[in-house]
Amino acid sequence: MSNIFLLVPVASILALVFAWIFFKSLMKNSEGTDRMKEIAQYVREGAMAYLKRQYKVVIIVFVVLFILLTIMAYFGVQNPFVPIAFLTGGFFSGLCGFLGMKTATFASARTAHGASQSLNKGLQVAFRSGAVMGLVVVGFALLDIAAWYLLLSKVIFTPEHMANGLHFLGLQFVHEGTTETQKLVEITTTMLTFGMGASTQALFARVGGGIYTKAADVGADLVGKVEAGIPEDDPRNPATIADNVGDNVGDVAGMGADLYESYAGSILATAALGAALPAVALAGTGIDPIKAVTAPMIVAAIGIVLSIIGIFMVRTKESATQKTLLRALFIGTFGSSVLILLALVGLAFMGWITWGVFWAVVIGLAAGVIIGQATEYYTSDEYKPTKGIAHQAQQGPATTIIDGIAVGMNSTWIPVVTIVLGIMGAFWAAGGAQHFAMGVYGIGFAAVGMLSTLGITLATDAFGPIADNAGGNAEMSELPPEVRERTDALDMLGNTTAATGKGFAIGSAALTAMALISAYMEEVRLWFGKIAKGGEGFVAKGQYVFYNDVAPAVEEGIKAVKISAASVKDFSAAYDITLFNPLFLGGLFLGSMMAFLFSAMTMKAVGRAAGAMVDEVRRQFREIKGILEGKATPEYAKCVEISTKGAQREMLVPSLVAIIVPVIVGASMGVAGVIGLLAGGLTAGFTLAVFMNNAGGAWDNAKKFIEKGNYGGKGSEAHKAGVVGDTVGDPFKDTSGPSLNILIKLMTMVSVVMAGLTVTLSLL
Amino acid sequence: MSNIFLLVPVASILALVFAWIFFKSLMKNSEGTDRMKEIAQYVREGAMAYLKRQYKVVIIVFVVLFILLTIMAYFGVQNPFVPIAFLTGGFFSGLCGFLGMKTATFASARTAHGASQSLNKGLQVAFRSGAVMGLVVVGFALLDIAAWYLLLSKVIFTPEHMANGLHFLGLQFVHEGTTETQKLVEITTTMLTFGMGASTQALFARVGGGIYTKAADVGADLVGKVEAGIPEDDPRNPATIADNVGDNVGDVAGMGADLYESYAGSILATAALGAALPAVALAGTGIDPIKAVTAPMIVAAIGIVLSIIGIFMVRTKESATQKTLLRALFIGTFGSSVLILLALVGLAFMGWITWGVFWAVVIGLAAGVIIGQATEYYTSDEYKPTKGIAHQAQQGPATTIIDGIAVGMNSTWIPVVTIVLGIMGAFWAAGGAQHFAMGVYGIGFAAVGMLSTLGITLATDAFGPIADNAGGNAEMSELPPEVRERTDALDMLGNTTAATGKGFAIGSAALTAMALISAYMEEVRLWFGKIAKGGEGFVAKGQYVFYNDVAPAVEEGIKAVKISAASVKDFSAAYDITLFNPLFLGGLFLGSMMAFLFSAMTMKAVGRAAGAMVDEVRRQFREIKGILEGKATPEYAKCVEISTKGAQREMLVPSLVAIIVPVIVGASMGVAGVIGLLAGGLTAGFTLAVFMNNAGGAWDNAKKFIEKGNYGGKGSEAHKAGVVGDTVGDPFKDTSGPSLNILIKLMTMVSVVMAGLTVTLSLL
Repeated sequence: MSNIFLLVPVASILALVFAWIFFKSLMKNSEGTDRMKEIAQYVREGAMAYLKRQYKVVIIVFVVLFILLTIMAYFGVQNPFVPIAFLTGGFFSGLCGFLGMKTATFASARTAHGASQSLNKGLQVAFRSGAVMGLVVVGFALLDIAAWYLLLSKVIFTPEHMANGLHFLGLQFVHEGTTETQKLVEITTTMLTFGMGASTQALFARVGGGIYTKAADVGADLVGKVEAGIPEDDPRNPATIADNVGDNVGDVAGMGADLYESYAGSILATAALGAALPAVALAGTGIDPIKAVTAPMIVAAIGIVLSIIGIFMVRTKESATQKTLLRALFIGTFGSSVLILLALVGLAFMGWITWGVFWAVVIGLAAGVIIGQATEYYTSDEYKPTKGIAHQAQQGPATTIIDGIAVGMNSTWIPVVTIVLGIMGAFWAAGGAQHFAMGVYGIGFAAVGMLSTLGITLATDAFGPIADNAGGNAEMSELPPEVRERTDALDMLGNTTAATGKGFAIGSAALTAMALISAYMEEVRLWFGKIAKGGEGFVAKGQYVFYNDVAPAVEEGIKAVKISAASVKDFSAAYDITLFNPLFLGGLFLGSMMAFLFSAMTMKAVGRAAGAMVDEVRRQFREIKGILEGKATPEYAKCVEISTKGAQREMLVPSLVAIIVPVIVGASMGVAGVIGLLAGGLTAGFTLAVFMNNAGGAWDNAKKFIEKGNYGGKGSEAHKAGVVGDTVGDPFKDTSGPSLNILIKLMTMVSVVMAGLTVTLSLL
Repeated sequence: MSNIFLLVPVASILALVFAWIFFKSLMKNSEGTDRMKEIAQYVREGAMAYLKRQYKVVIIVFVVLFILLTIMAYFGVQNPFVPIAFLTGGFFSGLCGFLGMKTATFASARTAHGASQSLNKGLQVAFRSGAVMGLVVVGFALLDIAAWYLLLSKVIFTPEHMANGLHFLGLQFVHEGTTETQKLVEITTTMLTFGMGASTQALFARVGGGIYTKAADVGADLVGKVEAGIPEDDPRNPATIADNVGDNVGDVAGMGADLYESYAGSILATAALGAALPAVALAGTGIDPIKAVTAPMIVAAIGIVLSIIGIFMVRTKESATQKTLLRALFIGTFGSSVLILLALVGLAFMGWITWGVFWAVVIGLAAGVIIGQATEYYTSDEYKPTKGIAHQAQQGPATTIIDGIAVGMNSTWIPVVTIVLGIMGAFWAAGGAQHFAMGVYGIGFAAVGMLSTLGITLATDAFGPIADNAGGNAEMSELPPEVRERTDALDMLGNTTAATGKGFAIGSAALTAMALISAYMEEVRLWFGKIAKGGEGFVAKGQYVFYNDVAPAVEEGIKAVKISAASVKDFSAAYDITLFNPLFLGGLFLGSMMAFLFSAMTMKAVGRAAGAMVDEVRRQFREIKGILEGKATPEYAKCVEISTKGAQREMLVPSLVAIIVPVIVGASMGVAGVIGLLAGGLTAGFTLAVFMNNAGGAWDNAKKFIEKGNYGGKGSEAHKAGVVGDTVGDPFKDTSGPSLNILIKLMTMVSVVMAGLTVTLSLL
């Protein structure tokens, strides 16, 4: 192992150290007045109550899956490490959510207080708090990866174990006679399955968080704003705390878990693809298999260090306008990107990556920027699409909806074309025309490249809900108007970064899923083991040996499964992933359907959860005397409780569907069906997600554009139509759209973990 | 040629004869009072004015494409028949549209008059008029196919021409030394490209008709009903005639052209797949290649004869309820299906089709019924989904929209699963596990089977708009209320058949596209011609010969194109349609995007065209004195003109995009890219179309459910929300959704026609 690999654990620890420093310096700031502290305390309690309940559900799911995975490991259709690794992936992702949200809820009042001093101070507090989330995510993700890589390569796959095998508790961890090449393949494909823990955690965080935040939002708006006519964030509204909690739950914890998964998934998938590179592809490049496997981790490590530097670049002056604020953030992210590229030039010169891979990383970084900018174009009220929706709002809600849907559907073209050019560009840049495997490895690196700036990108994302909450805190604490003006400026900035952040999240999800699907085939190839020509039988991973004639194997004390000559034919059929294999085509259809079905389920879930919230807010207005006069305190906790319960109840069915369908397809339609399912889910899911995110974002900003005084301003017919658009857009952009990121990745991850079972079933 | 083939021309002529008989007997009925005649005349003139203008535009497009195809034929990248065949396909489709619409516009007043005598009389007139459309479509489509097949097999590919070649006007029609096997492949792949004419015609009919009908509808509703407060179909509304014209233009002509294309496409694609069956697959089945090629035409011919019998089965009693009416239609369609199956049993016993193919047809027929029933479940107000939307309407327009979208997305699962099971079932039933080509041939037969009842199915579809128009006529002519009650009963029946008809149209479009995509590969294989190993060069179809070294060919006076060894490698790359070819994957993404982009464009188009209509209706109300008191006649023709112009103007861009994108993808991304594009367009487009159709249908019926007196009935807040849902749903279900059928098929058809160019470009 080269010394440069040490950068991986070092950078991940560095990220955690800086996260700690930023957190400490955050805590030194005052939370302001007693009222501010009180509000912040309510939100904090609500957020923690939610997290506690969510983790309880998640733990049950984890325990069930852990048992299932263990049973599979016992029967040899699963690697024995996977159950434990599954837990660590989930644990660290959950820990990030806890720490990020804790920080965010500590930061809102402090940001409001900072804004009461100066705009720059407010920006610094909010942004550095967001950076805690960003650094915690990349830090723990890379630390987990580094730890497992070191454990597996140094402790488990020792030369001695590789020669003699390693058994423990009746399970075979290392097969006798494992070669050096096999070792890397075994290690990386095993590590790949760790991502399953992060995926499961992300599923619940994104879907649950998405349902929570919208249920609270709709409840607060529909009864508070529309029926009772009190302003946003008014303390008389019982759902207002739940609404503020929702921002943290959905946009901090949900987004963080989503990107944690993409980050870990892209690195692990690329490492697995690196291990699968044939010698002929590496010949003459100066890259050895170990370099190919560790390079994505090293690129990620470099990205962490330079993201930290980028975070320090973000500062602004008091007289800052929206543009200069945006510029401050842009300098930070763009600065990190440039520094990363410079560092990669060095890495290429040192012979750790090929120049082709370098360009693949450049393409990934560029694709992230382009998708982000396109998202801004389609959803910002400074451009034609959103202005057009506001214009249509004059003719009533129906035309507002139609135009918003058209804008959203139309907006899919730039992201799709970017991803297509990105995939093809990365493939060819890395040398896919000469060696197919190199091209696929390049696609993986495009994903790693896009996510290399995650430390700072996530900081700008998490900044949004913190600023939003600071505004809420300022409003509820009745701070002077100039404070609210400053927090509003930060909040608007947050809306823009949230939109570009959503584009970034779905773009990286697509590339990560792409890398994972490629890695899935490696996993399948591994599980097939050595196929003996003519149906003589083959040795699968783990304890099972597949033979045409099981008797000799049984005599030797090996668990053996009979396979037929027909099964061996199925092996090539399983690899027939052409369109004309009806299993593949059927899978494609099902994947496309899954995207729509999952969206329908999450949207319905919001509707039901919001309905319960509406009833509760109405009840409080009715039953608690003096609440509207501000004489009685509403029961905030009741609303938090309802949103929490609703989210937990409603997230289960869609989540289970996302986990179970790939298993069923794998068992019934084999590898070709699974690949079709994943490809259909990826392509249709990506397009659908972009449509929903951007339609939702555009409706939101069209409404705000009208509220600025256009087309009659607040209270006009156009405004009413705009509110309808915004309400429809809420579950689009904050629940269903982002949840599709998870669906795309999770279905792939489940398939990877279930590859052993799928392959075994297809051979029996 | 066997005598049984004679059934094909005979059945097609029989269909036309019965269409003529039905038309004549229709014309014998009275159009009723002078007022009724006047109204009918307005609608007829409007419809013909529209058709005239549309055909003018279409003729220009056809001339341009004809010239392009001729140039391609001259340069040897296109078969010389294609330009002429393209024209005949377009001509017959256009003729069907003209005749069908002419009949429908003659039928509305006669149906109203018939309904003034008895319900059964009204049903008979409307249904038999619809049958004219159904029989004209299947008759001309099959006649065109039979004529070309006889021309090519009897006149062009004679033994003498096959031995010596056939040249004419400097173009090579038959290559020297063509074998019997090659003959059938050449004939069927050439015929396949005839469908391009039908596709182009269908594109303009569906997209233009869809825009027309919704622009008129929205204009009539928004200003007339909402602003001026006058009822539906009121003669004081200037847009009311345009609205009635729209029903004919969109639902008769548009639907007819759509299904004409599916019908011809499925038969031609299956014939091409039959010609490509390898001898080993046919061995022992008793089927020879000629039987394999003509069997789909014979099945279609049988379907025609038995559809005619089915049409005679449709009759009802005066005391008929909605249920008995529906039962009358069901007996007709179901009766035909059963008779077709019985006839196919005979065909299988006679050894014209295998039993596997028989089961594939059964699967196709069953899939059509299931998708139709699922559509009814999700869009009829007798079931939970639509009732749920009406319930949500109480909370305002936003929840109505969200719930409708969720219902639409949710409704995709049954049709998708049905299509998946249908594709896989037909594949395996036909013997795909043993011989891949047989399985694909079976999928083609599933499409042919689904469409075999088209004669009667289309009659029930066209019935809807005729009944709708009859109602309009009765209203405007102020007939007694019991007449309106009877036409309302027929209209409601029409709404149900329209919904199931939409499901049938998209289901058959999916299967047809599937068969076409498979046939596309045959087209590509043919164009590649005989690849010489090691880059020696190969002979492509037409005059060009591709050689590594062009000199010897040039000496022999043959136009020759140099190809490189790298190009020969591309040949296999072009066939690499696995997910891991980034070209294929990129194509998949682009196909999914095309579905969304096309929907956005058609939706925007409706918005703009409707805007112009709204302005015009407002102008007439303002400027024509006494219009609202019924003292002055509105300028109906002006509104018809505006809808017509708007539709023509707006249909061009989306239409051209649908035609050009496959060409660009073919030129830049080769065969793999094209296949990806088609697969992505098919799977995402199908899901999106089902979503849009069903969401639109459910909103429509939810509104009607409220109007029946539920949740406050007409004028309530729930009703207002229901109207918003219905308005959003209109372009969903009548423009964008149905237009996707065309997109799916047209992109495939364009690719088939351009296969020669794509292959040539990929080899240069």
